[in-house]
Amino acid sequence: MAQNIYDDPGFFDNYAQLPRSQHGLDAAGEWPAIKALLAAMDGLDVVDLGCGYGWFCRWAAEAGAASVLGLDVSAKMLERAAADTDDPRITYRREDLDSVELPEREFDLVYSSLTLHYLADVSRLFGKVASALRPGGRLVCSLEHPLYTAPSQPGFVEHEGRTVWPLDDYSVEGPRITNWLADGVVKQHRTIATYVNAVADAGFAITRMVEWAPTPADLDEHPDWAIEVHRPPFLLIGARVA
Amino acid sequence: MAQNIYDDPGFFDNYAQLPRSQHGLDAAGEWPAIKALLAAMDGLDVVDLGCGYGWFCRWAAEAGAASVLGLDVSAKMLERAAADTDDPRITYRREDLDSVELPEREFDLVYSSLTLHYLADVSRLFGKVASALRPGGRLVCSLEHPLYTAPSQPGFVEHEGRTVWPLDDYSVEGPRITNWLADGVVKQHRTIATYVNAVADAGFAITRMVEWAPTPADLDEHPDWAIEVHRPPFLLIGARVA
Repeated sequence: MAQNIYDDPGFFDNYAQLPRSQHGLDAAGEWPAIKALLAAMDGLDVVDLGCGYGWFCRWAAEAGAASVLGLDVSAKMLERAAADTDDPRITYRREDLDSVELPEREFDLVYSSLTLHYLADVSRLFGKVASALRPGGRLVCSLEHPLYTAPSQPGFVEHEGRTVWPLDDYSVEGPRITNWLADGVVKQHRTIATYVNAVADAGFAITRMVEWAPTPADLDEHPDWAIEVHRPPFLLIGARVA
Repeated sequence: MAQNIYDDPGFFDNYAQLPRSQHGLDAAGEWPAIKALLAAMDGLDVVDLGCGYGWFCRWAAEAGAASVLGLDVSAKMLERAAADTDDPRITYRREDLDSVELPEREFDLVYSSLTLHYLADVSRLFGKVASALRPGGRLVCSLEHPLYTAPSQPGFVEHEGRTVWPLDDYSVEGPRITNWLADGVVKQHRTIATYVNAVADAGFAITRMVEWAPTPADLDEHPDWAIEVHRPPFLLIGARVA
């Protein structure tokens, strides 16, 4: 199974301090781009892979989803998610996404935010997801951009008067150990091509890809995001089962 | 129209010295990966966008294509291509790919190698290409990887004892002027997402993406290619019209 870092007390406490943990979806820079991929939610049966605190599950229910199933490996996250809602359309369940089984043809939308780069085997999961969707059903997912996960030393540096992202090992897939919010957090680096091919091989047609970067309006509000134009932090994929 | 750098005498002479110019497809590291995307050629009507010296057109005819149309903006390249074949299945024509018109539903395969990053408008071209293909027809293209075209200073550097690719401006699309084989060569940088979305919007389903990197067998033969694992030089896309 994937590392369950979110149940590490130190990680959990630090994660709770992030803007998106405290203020939800609107504090996430990429949320407007995700919302554009989601389109209308009315009447949809939705599953959220890696639901965390349940911000998206609550948003989906408010946006008109018929049912929302939130899955996460972290007992602590699910505990807080459950405490934050009494909406009968929302259900939470603890699952390891590297071995999860999903019912066939029960969902219209599979959503996953910043979770897939923790998993050892996304091909298996995309296969389960494709079977779990009704014909025409959609996948909308975000993940840490492969340019973000690749480097042996992920962090901007100054080189000859320029701010650059010191890319190396992009084509070397496998675990990367970083010290983000806690020591020894394990992420799985995969290339964009590996994600694209896993989605296509599962039977999806990719309808939209977004390599998220701040818009001019974003930069008016958050001038400190300007550095992100050098290396997109998030990759978003929208796809539809054939 | 796109810059016609291949008709610049200095560029043309330098280009003629590249291994792939002298020895053809087998001297191109990415050719085995392209061949895998091409699959069987028997009986196909093929168009090659940016055919250059015509290496691919001749290979396609030998591999069994029914007809091969090679298009290029460079009169010098076409002159040499025409001199190198008398195969009646091969036709060459001078075209600016930024404004080319193609007949509808006349081809089974559209091929393009390391050309699209010179064009100002790939969306228009992918639209023309989709209409030019018969139902089920395929697109196989390679281009300079967006990680290669992005940086303001594209070249590996040493940073704190590591060899890194100093990525910047990835999300800033537009022209990049480099001094590759001649001064002032203009390439158009676009993100991977822009290419993926242009292909999808034209009506294609993407069936395969390759971010080319040397295989262990490649490295046995060409140890100097090892640096390419840090930053893929080529992006390959295989797609099929719906």
